Amino acid sequence: MNDSYDFIKACYGQPVARTPVWLMRQAGRYLPQYRKIRERVTFLELCKTPELAAEVTIQPVDALGVDAAILFSDILVPIEPMGQRLHYRPAPVLEPPVRSAADVAALQVLKPEQDVPYVLETIRLVRRELAGRVPLIGFGGAPFTLACYMVEGVGSRHFLALKKLMYQSPIVYAQLMDKITDTSIVYLRAQAEAGVQALQIFDSWGGILSPADYKRHVLPYSRRLIAALEDLGLPLIHFVKGAGTMLDLVASAGGQVVGLDWSISLNRARDVLGTKMAVQGNLDPSVLLGDQAVIEREVQRILDENAGRPGHVFNLGHGILPDVPPENAAFLVDCVHRLSQH
Amino acid sequence: MNDSYDFIKACYGQPVARTPVWLMRQAGRYLPQYRKIRERVTFLELCKTPELAAEVTIQPVDALGVDAAILFSDILVPIEPMGQRLHYRPAPVLEPPVRSAADVAALQVLKPEQDVPYVLETIRLVRRELAGRVPLIGFGGAPFTLACYMVEGVGSRHFLALKKLMYQSPIVYAQLMDKITDTSIVYLRAQAEAGVQALQIFDSWGGILSPADYKRHVLPYSRRLIAALEDLGLPLIHFVKGAGTMLDLVASAGGQVVGLDWSISLNRARDVLGTKMAVQGNLDPSVLLGDQAVIEREVQRILDENAGRPGHVFNLGHGILPDVPPENAAFLVDCVHRLSQH
Repeated sequence: MNDSYDFIKACYGQPVARTPVWLMRQAGRYLPQYRKIRERVTFLELCKTPELAAEVTIQPVDALGVDAAILFSDILVPIEPMGQRLHYRPAPVLEPPVRSAADVAALQVLKPEQDVPYVLETIRLVRRELAGRVPLIGFGGAPFTLACYMVEGVGSRHFLALKKLMYQSPIVYAQLMDKITDTSIVYLRAQAEAGVQALQIFDSWGGILSPADYKRHVLPYSRRLIAALEDLGLPLIHFVKGAGTMLDLVASAGGQVVGLDWSISLNRARDVLGTKMAVQGNLDPSVLLGDQAVIEREVQRILDENAGRPGHVFNLGHGILPDVPPENAAFLVDCVHRLSQH
Repeated sequence: MNDSYDFIKACYGQPVARTPVWLMRQAGRYLPQYRKIRERVTFLELCKTPELAAEVTIQPVDALGVDAAILFSDILVPIEPMGQRLHYRPAPVLEPPVRSAADVAALQVLKPEQDVPYVLETIRLVRRELAGRVPLIGFGGAPFTLACYMVEGVGSRHFLALKKLMYQSPIVYAQLMDKITDTSIVYLRAQAEAGVQALQIFDSWGGILSPADYKRHVLPYSRRLIAALEDLGLPLIHFVKGAGTMLDLVASAGGQVVGLDWSISLNRARDVLGTKMAVQGNLDPSVLLGDQAVIEREVQRILDENAGRPGHVFNLGHGILPDVPPENAAFLVDCVHRLSQH
């Protein structure tokens, strides 16, 4: 059943009639139907209310005709039960920041059924309401990206608190990463058991490190996480933003699909990754602010760069921007389908 | 005379006894002697007062033992006379932002001797005061990075106003880029005539574009700028931050040295660039927040990645951070000299 979806087939590198497409953050602020629901509840309330979270998860499937739904949630949701308070002002804030061995020791490993039942209930609801129309993708933050937020406490440009910890207290850093990895494993396994049909790991900040530091301080944890998910039999998408210069390292973490931002041509990325890994990407999200002629030109360019190789899921290279006209997002999906059809 | 400096030799790919090193933003806030001067004047007053600008240019030569001085100034200094007001609050603000064909038409091309005499006077003063100790590097922003600031008006994360102009009004965008390129040519030529012994072009934001957009919307202007400087006979360093995935394009713009951030291993970068181009880089600036053992380990790693190839100028992969202890910066310079000595 799962194998009949173009999205799933493409993840496994199998041929499809037309390139499947979904958009990171496709459930969100650029959609008026999403904003209408957000008038009534906060972002975190929305994440924690399965009926509403399921509704916004499905909105872009109806509005855009994408080939997959992605669970509406946030990578920081499993961090709150680990022991940090989570607020959105509107950017996320985690309090107090994790800085010491004692801070790390005080963190709990997540118990998904007990700590985040609303996530699992949302998944069950979405599966029921989608009734097989498109597959549902679950997701989580990569251990490094979660560590960035937990140590900084707030968003950051240079992540200096995280880097100080990594360089000056490598043992405390490793203990933190191990605990987050344990949480990520049980969290993503619970999502699979609740019914997601693919998993994406978001490493939004892995690209802030040199390849040498990525290999030393990130890769072992991402690799352990992915290895612990292998027996689930679901396609796993690993997206490390800004990692175009070290795709060989990213691929060595495992999984079926490497997510790509727009900083690398699809052609070059596929040359590095070889035929074993599928790819997902990689349109600059700002192209959706342009007119439709530019959108169509850029879709064609990316399809040309892929040169018909199987194993391509079309996506943006990062989340959709809040001020994108919804009709441009729908036009993009249509373009991908139309221009990739054999 | 110029040819006797290790820094200049390395720029031309000639062998040196030990790897030359300087640090981007080496004149700046992390130095107490700089902060003392800044107590008396604003940032812009400092840029416009040759005696003081010369003094802070030379401070790191004395304090750190670097192999080159770099003019103390700001890439936005030549923009003010083009017709935008420039403030620092403390981040730079250009008013009003350039958005239309009329805005572009109203911009003036710089007349260096008339518009920025203080820059040229600073160069003359520094050359006199350095008395040949180390060479002096001049610099300017690449046309694209200057356009980013001019169109956004303020710093930005996604540079959406710039990208909208680029995608929706490519002719206006091209007119703006042409005018900035004309300004950059006369500005950098004037610096050379005043006495700088090398030039660095900073393209801080070139890496926000896909390789396809970089090739279409940035490269022609950077190439024209560099071609117009070739007869000066000075080494030209071209630093495009975040361009590790398209170094072949960057190199095709010309010049002698490609600046590298830390997102790519020096080994891989040199493989792409071949033996024709020298490289500059590429330590993660946050390493200087760590202890000296980490600094020494990372310097050794970068020297190992270079594997003794001629044509390497050691530098950070971006500007030095304001909270780096000066003794760590001095230790870095010492490490590079000590560990690279034959």
